[in-house]
Amino acid sequence: MHEKCGVVGISLQDRDAARPLYYSLYALQHRGQEAAGIVTHDGFQQHSHVETGLVGDVFDEGDLGQLNGENGIGHVRYPTSGALDKSCAQPFSVSFKSGSLGLSHNGNLVNADEVRDELAELGHAFTSDGDTEVIAHDLARNLLEEDLVRAVKRTMGRIHGSYSLTIMHDDTVLGVRDPKGNRPLVIGELEDGYVLASESAAIDTLDGELVRDVEPGELVVLHPDGTGYDSYQLIEEDSTAHCFFEHVYFARPDSNIDGTLVYDARRELGRRLYAEAGIDTDVVMPVPDSGRAFASGYAEAAQDAGVDVNFAEGLMKNRYVGRTFIMPTQDERERAVRLKLNPIKNTVKGKRVTLIDDSIVRGTTSTQLVELMRDAGAEEVHVRIGAPPIVAPCYMGIDMATREELIASDMSVEEIRETIHADSLAYLSVDAIAETLDQQRDDLCLGCVTGEYPYDIDGEATDREVERPVIQSSLADD
Amino acid sequence: MHEKCGVVGISLQDRDAARPLYYSLYALQHRGQEAAGIVTHDGFQQHSHVETGLVGDVFDEGDLGQLNGENGIGHVRYPTSGALDKSCAQPFSVSFKSGSLGLSHNGNLVNADEVRDELAELGHAFTSDGDTEVIAHDLARNLLEEDLVRAVKRTMGRIHGSYSLTIMHDDTVLGVRDPKGNRPLVIGELEDGYVLASESAAIDTLDGELVRDVEPGELVVLHPDGTGYDSYQLIEEDSTAHCFFEHVYFARPDSNIDGTLVYDARRELGRRLYAEAGIDTDVVMPVPDSGRAFASGYAEAAQDAGVDVNFAEGLMKNRYVGRTFIMPTQDERERAVRLKLNPIKNTVKGKRVTLIDDSIVRGTTSTQLVELMRDAGAEEVHVRIGAPPIVAPCYMGIDMATREELIASDMSVEEIRETIHADSLAYLSVDAIAETLDQQRDDLCLGCVTGEYPYDIDGEATDREVERPVIQSSLADD
Amino acid sequence: MHEKCGVVGISLQDRDAARPLYYSLYALQHRGQEAAGIVTHDGFQQHSHVETGLVGDVFDEGDLGQLNGENGIGHVRYPTSGALDKSCAQPFSVSFKSGSLGLSHNGNLVNADEVRDELAELGHAFTSDGDTEVIAHDLARNLLEEDLVRAVKRTMGRIHGSYSLTIMHDDTVLGVRDPKGNRPLVIGELEDGYVLASESAAIDTLDGELVRDVEPGELVVLHPDGTGYDSYQLIEEDSTAHCFFEHVYFARPDSNIDGTLVYDARRELGRRLYAEAGIDTDVVMPVPDSGRAFASGYAEAAQDAGVDVNFAEGLMKNRYVGRTFIMPTQDERERAVRLKLNPIKNTVKGKRVTLIDDSIVRGTTSTQLVELMRDAGAEEVHVRIGAPPIVAPCYMGIDMATREELIASDMSVEEIRETIHADSLAYLSVDAIAETLDQQRDDLCLGCVTGEYPYDIDGEATDREVERPVIQSSLADD
Amino acid sequence: MHEKCGVVGISLQDRDAARPLYYSLYALQHRGQEAAGIVTHDGFQQHSHVETGLVGDVFDEGDLGQLNGENGIGHVRYPTSGALDKSCAQPFSVSFKSGSLGLSHNGNLVNADEVRDELAELGHAFTSDGDTEVIAHDLARNLLEEDLVRAVKRTMGRIHGSYSLTIMHDDTVLGVRDPKGNRPLVIGELEDGYVLASESAAIDTLDGELVRDVEPGELVVLHPDGTGYDSYQLIEEDSTAHCFFEHVYFARPDSNIDGTLVYDARRELGRRLYAEAGIDTDVVMPVPDSGRAFASGYAEAAQDAGVDVNFAEGLMKNRYVGRTFIMPTQDERERAVRLKLNPIKNTVKGKRVTLIDDSIVRGTTSTQLVELMRDAGAEEVHVRIGAPPIVAPCYMGIDMATREELIASDMSVEEIRETIHADSLAYLSVDAIAETLDQQRDDLCLGCVTGEYPYDIDGEATDREVERPVIQSSLADD
Repeated sequence: MHEKCGVVGISLQDRDAARPLYYSLYALQHRGQEAAGIVTHDGFQQHSHVETGLVGDVFDEGDLGQLNGENGIGHVRYPTSGALDKSCAQPFSVSFKSGSLGLSHNGNLVNADEVRDELAELGHAFTSDGDTEVIAHDLARNLLEEDLVRAVKRTMGRIHGSYSLTIMHDDTVLGVRDPKGNRPLVIGELEDGYVLASESAAIDTLDGELVRDVEPGELVVLHPDGTGYDSYQLIEEDSTAHCFFEHVYFARPDSNIDGTLVYDARRELGRRLYAEAGIDTDVVMPVPDSGRAFASGYAEAAQDAGVDVNFAEGLMKNRYVGRTFIMPTQDERERAVRLKLNPIKNTVKGKRVTLIDDSIVRGTTSTQLVELMRDAGAEEVHVRIGAPPIVAPCYMGIDMATREELIASDMSVEEIRETIHADSLAYLSVDAIAETLDQQRDDLCLGCVTGEYPYDIDGEATDREVERPVIQSSLADD
Repeated sequence: MHEKCGVVGISLQDRDAARPLYYSLYALQHRGQEAAGIVTHDGFQQHSHVETGLVGDVFDEGDLGQLNGENGIGHVRYPTSGALDKSCAQPFSVSFKSGSLGLSHNGNLVNADEVRDELAELGHAFTSDGDTEVIAHDLARNLLEEDLVRAVKRTMGRIHGSYSLTIMHDDTVLGVRDPKGNRPLVIGELEDGYVLASESAAIDTLDGELVRDVEPGELVVLHPDGTGYDSYQLIEEDSTAHCFFEHVYFARPDSNIDGTLVYDARRELGRRLYAEAGIDTDVVMPVPDSGRAFASGYAEAAQDAGVDVNFAEGLMKNRYVGRTFIMPTQDERERAVRLKLNPIKNTVKGKRVTLIDDSIVRGTTSTQLVELMRDAGAEEVHVRIGAPPIVAPCYMGIDMATREELIASDMSVEEIRETIHADSLAYLSVDAIAETLDQQRDDLCLGCVTGEYPYDIDGEATDREVERPVIQSSLADD
Repeated sequence: MHEKCGVVGISLQDRDAARPLYYSLYALQHRGQEAAGIVTHDGFQQHSHVETGLVGDVFDEGDLGQLNGENGIGHVRYPTSGALDKSCAQPFSVSFKSGSLGLSHNGNLVNADEVRDELAELGHAFTSDGDTEVIAHDLARNLLEEDLVRAVKRTMGRIHGSYSLTIMHDDTVLGVRDPKGNRPLVIGELEDGYVLASESAAIDTLDGELVRDVEPGELVVLHPDGTGYDSYQLIEEDSTAHCFFEHVYFARPDSNIDGTLVYDARRELGRRLYAEAGIDTDVVMPVPDSGRAFASGYAEAAQDAGVDVNFAEGLMKNRYVGRTFIMPTQDERERAVRLKLNPIKNTVKGKRVTLIDDSIVRGTTSTQLVELMRDAGAEEVHVRIGAPPIVAPCYMGIDMATREELIASDMSVEEIRETIHADSLAYLSVDAIAETLDQQRDDLCLGCVTGEYPYDIDGEATDREVERPVIQSSLADD
Repeated sequence: MHEKCGVVGISLQDRDAARPLYYSLYALQHRGQEAAGIVTHDGFQQHSHVETGLVGDVFDEGDLGQLNGENGIGHVRYPTSGALDKSCAQPFSVSFKSGSLGLSHNGNLVNADEVRDELAELGHAFTSDGDTEVIAHDLARNLLEEDLVRAVKRTMGRIHGSYSLTIMHDDTVLGVRDPKGNRPLVIGELEDGYVLASESAAIDTLDGELVRDVEPGELVVLHPDGTGYDSYQLIEEDSTAHCFFEHVYFARPDSNIDGTLVYDARRELGRRLYAEAGIDTDVVMPVPDSGRAFASGYAEAAQDAGVDVNFAEGLMKNRYVGRTFIMPTQDERERAVRLKLNPIKNTVKGKRVTLIDDSIVRGTTSTQLVELMRDAGAEEVHVRIGAPPIVAPCYMGIDMATREELIASDMSVEEIRETIHADSLAYLSVDAIAETLDQQRDDLCLGCVTGEYPYDIDGEATDREVERPVIQSSLADD
């Protein structure tokens, strides 16, 4: 659930880009664990290594050694559109009339089929179902007639949806962010070059400095000799559509996105959660790891309000539960959550507990956690969520769930509370999100919590004025 | 570094033990990632599956399906004595005159060579260098002449050192803890059986109740039908030698060991660390994950003292850095720590920071972390450690380091501070450890922090009265 | 060395094609061990499974189970053009405007770059360097404007070189053979369908009947319901260019190619070898496995001539020497051949021996074999080869060797004899080949033994009238 | 089926034994494909590498590099007694009072349980069910009290059954053959050392000279410095019990066993088969690969008798059908044999065919082959077998089949002929075997063809005088 791709591009002076690309992908591994790849260019030809698996498993010393060249791009993948198979792993690379292209894509086009059909009319044949191949073919075609910047602009005019791209045209590395800036993309400066990456944490890993976010609708062209970059503001729109969920869940806490440090945003969201729906209990407890920063802000706000709140790490996470895990039998199912999260009874027993998490998707985990708390002797279990209810699917590249699976798609907050057996339940308001991120509501993509999307999507509302759902409910309301 | 084995044993009524053993080993995975194994007995014969690798990789559904029987033992291994190879992976199983034996061992014998030689004199041939085979052979030999309880007692009288064992004699599961109780071992009750495990977290995973610790020198015999257990206090000694490092580092925070919840102990050690060596800075920051509970207690104590301390998670850990990681080149080496831990600059910049960790072994990581803080703009970096300086190696089953590698073995605290470039450095006192764990100093094994060991070890002191090292130093001392 | 691809296509009535395709590829495994793949179509969509490795390793039951559909094509690959990587493994599949295409190709285009450039001009972007993608794109483009048969014809008019193709257009399976019929392709009939395959042995494996060879320049279209096929003679040329080496080496002895059973051809070539260059020795011995049929015919001819020749299998082949073999050190190198072939001393000692092989490429193995014979006590070692000297490279899809590596490219037969230390050496004449295969010389591709090619190749002769090399030399000549 | 272990031992001057051991195991790979292992000794300690798999997969350069020492032993394994798992793979190594032991075993003890029980009485504990561990423990125990030679002799006095052993005691390599010489073992001389191996082909591979067979009951002790060996005739018996099946099937044709070259023996058996049961048909055809030498001898005898027999390789074997092969469905089952063996129709059609094979076990393959011949148009199919009917199981280390599975255990030759649908069927006589191998019948183990065994086996006859079965039947008899 909840995962997406990471992209990177690097141009260096007199140093091969492969190792820095590798370390960058490590830093972005949380954005995709299904496949990883690097494509470099040594001035004469492309070198490529793309495989399914974690970064650490996909590459060995020999692989890095063969990825020659001071310029390159990389990708970590979680499937968005296009079923996962090798042909969909990225970077996607093609050769065409005037050279070679490599593409790494984070996001999701809403008109991919349309563009694909147009290209097919012109005779294009496709090896995959992915968006990325569509972008590559369109760009390759435009490059037959235009220079690089114009060709990218023309492609940007044709594709709609969310995309942060790193592109390699021969040995030139580009970065492009869609006109609404839905997915993050940043520029960083190294001692001997420049880097483009989904998140600033990748730049930190290389000991570089964050320069700034790539602007919505901007094209950044790194100099192949690592000495600088050029910027082209190719498309400008009135409003942006930054994904607020990057701040709430996807991004690393130590990344800066669109001017905000994710960790600070989460702490502030936690503070606002207390302000909006604070409840005084004996213990405030994060669901690790994602709820930690929210809980820390929440508890701090309580203390600032003079409440003697006890912040405690009462749920221990087993870091070894991985993919190859054998599922318990039906009989053991309800205990399964214990393999992953175990409550520290002393912290819970006889206490009124507030559990803080970042979101509720299907509601299954929340139900199990509340039960776990009660089994451990909690007298009351209150749940506070650092985001609004997720009422609708994401079309912008996040594999959240179908609408039917989303517990909040057809349940009120009170109904959800009952379902998960919490004593009270409250979500954060949409306004709190906008204020915290210091953005106008209309500059955020709030589709999954409002059902209104910044792009035309078949069968979904595009008007941004809809009724807000009730976002708080408690036993006291009964 | 710092790792050790985990053992488990289970007897059930009318339910195969394989799956519960599997989940238990998952819960104990932090005690050993090199190999895992399960041996069961179905009343007629043993079934065994032992391999190198993580629990999730070692077993698949088919493997569990073939491990028939309601009684079984399991093991996760990190090498202590005996070079790692398949023949050393456990449980170790042998057949002998009157049946079969399976053994899982956590600990280290100090007279293994001696016992091995005695057995060799009698004609025994050994397939490995491990302690476990020595115990197995000795026990098998004793079982030729004695009943089970007497045979175990005789073996306990012969082997010296630390051991927590789960043993399977035909279909009877036993648990044994050495007379000084160096390594942990607990008994738990399930709905339909009993379990023995290194840590209580394994019992929680099975939704069971912790009954109590196995006592030092005690033999526990589970009824093969899962209906109960018998206890035999086979050896009694005046003092115990509980490993205090289990509480400081090895064990899971959610485990109860010798009457103390590890998480509570760490919080209390953090409180005492503030009491002994607290320093008021802008930020208190844990080194994740091990420093978190210490830092939480430390900050709490500061607040209780009326100090407005800011507790912040300023170091973000990359959970994907694993074994298959390609090491950076010499050139990139100093940046390597960034791949694993990245500072959140906002939290650090212009601040006086106190970093809290559980221990310092070689000093390399501490040096890198202090540098990381300074690079991130910290004005001052103070280091506080929740344990005394490690001045001597461990002989009881922890693969810490050789004496030469231990930074505190030949450096004063002030010298260490200089080496790691901290503004101040302080360790916790040995007394604080003893008081927190509510133990007499003589009931703890403090060998690694005092150089005095509870067992006779060639070339090491056994007298418990040695001079305590200075454990605090700061710039102010200069 | 000496290897090439195998292709297959199957259409069945009410039975999935995956398993028969799998068994067919097994039967064609000798034509390529680097990769294997199957693409099927179930009437709605394509299913594909392509991987590097042997057929038995590439597919498991689950893979076959997912390859739904009664129509499909398959491929086993050895690299011809296009460096080996996953993107070059076949069948190659693309989707385009009016449907999907899958292609399996055996052969080599001589104008691939030219066609690729023309397509690139039109905007096509390529994911690989392979010929097959070029054919696929060209065919896809033609299908925008023409019906299937005309589209194939137009593509055949554009590509030059050798090709036997099985193609799947949506769920229709096609077979195409280049106008000169360089590579083999046959049609077979099953109880419930039809099959196209590189060799008739694949048909036997499916218990089917060989119908006939696909004609040079012919397109065969299988009915998707398995009930029959249509034939279109799209291009006719005056002469063919059948590869004679298929009969000499590549094909299975039990296959029928262009009207001749390979086994019979080899026996007849052996008979003619005796007629042209027979020498009476104590023993006639094949180099296993490829020399066996030649030696059998040779010995038979000798007997028919009243010579009391002793046919003996004096070289034992170790069938387990495979890819993962660790090479001997320099010191052990000369003994290396013994790991693969060991002489039976009784058969050799004190004897005059005639060794029969199918060809000499670099000469290294022949040198070692002659030495082996002498070490085993042979008094004389005569070498007879069932084909003419290989003097020039193959451009038609066989990865033989570069010209420099070919021992006969710049050595006379006498020089080769000296190099391999044989007492006498003789090759078969080109005329014997043509007569045996019952073909006009101009209907065979004899490029590798004459240096004249049936296609225009840069820097190579195309005139078919060149001087024949001397093909026999013996000590007696000295 | 029909497979068994191979053993080797090597002592060299100033050269590591690992690589020669590796090549030897390659040469013996046909004797066991389930596991392979090498144990070396460098004068100070043992080094061991044992794994399941083929030799080429078990070892890589790194593994060989770590197997230090000029002395070592090796093993390839096929399971005889002891279920296959890693603990049963060999060489088996143990350390005991006065040093270390490594053992490689080919054969099967008939009193292993008895000896194991005696050792268990003395306190021995066993990690496996295998014979080899029993021998190792017994030898280790004897070595406590005796010197090496006496200890081996005492162990040989205790164990009964078939065994060819290579043993390493510290750095001394020994070879032992059981007093009846059931399994082969030979001594070879290299330029710089000596080698012991199951078959002489392993010596050829190392470019060494076969010295002689190890005698039944002999112990050979290689000098650890590679300069020579000592021989001790420890036990002498009146008669031997050489396994005649080594000559008929197991051994490589290029090996010399007990004074006979296997290839020559098979040719001679073929000649005698013609003499005893020759039938004049149009074609004589071997079942590859095992029937080839028999067929060659058979055809030669026919020619010598003035019969114009046509020897033809009419069955083509697919060398790629391996372990990972997906079995055909029930429906396809009868065609399955075609995947492995395909008839060359020209050779068969309208012909009377004699098929020559080495043995018939279950009869399934013979039935399929006869049907294959008839499908290919054979007018008559006569089957001739180069060994007597297999009427009873092997207890000496060959995993043949249970008695129920053996078609000849309860069927007459005529009944078998009917079952396999042959026009006539004949086996070779036991006397022909004895004469060919130049042995007294009482010096051969003929258990599987007579039901009388040279060792006491529970429930089997030991008297050597039983009635011979009728071994020939033909349509003409009807």
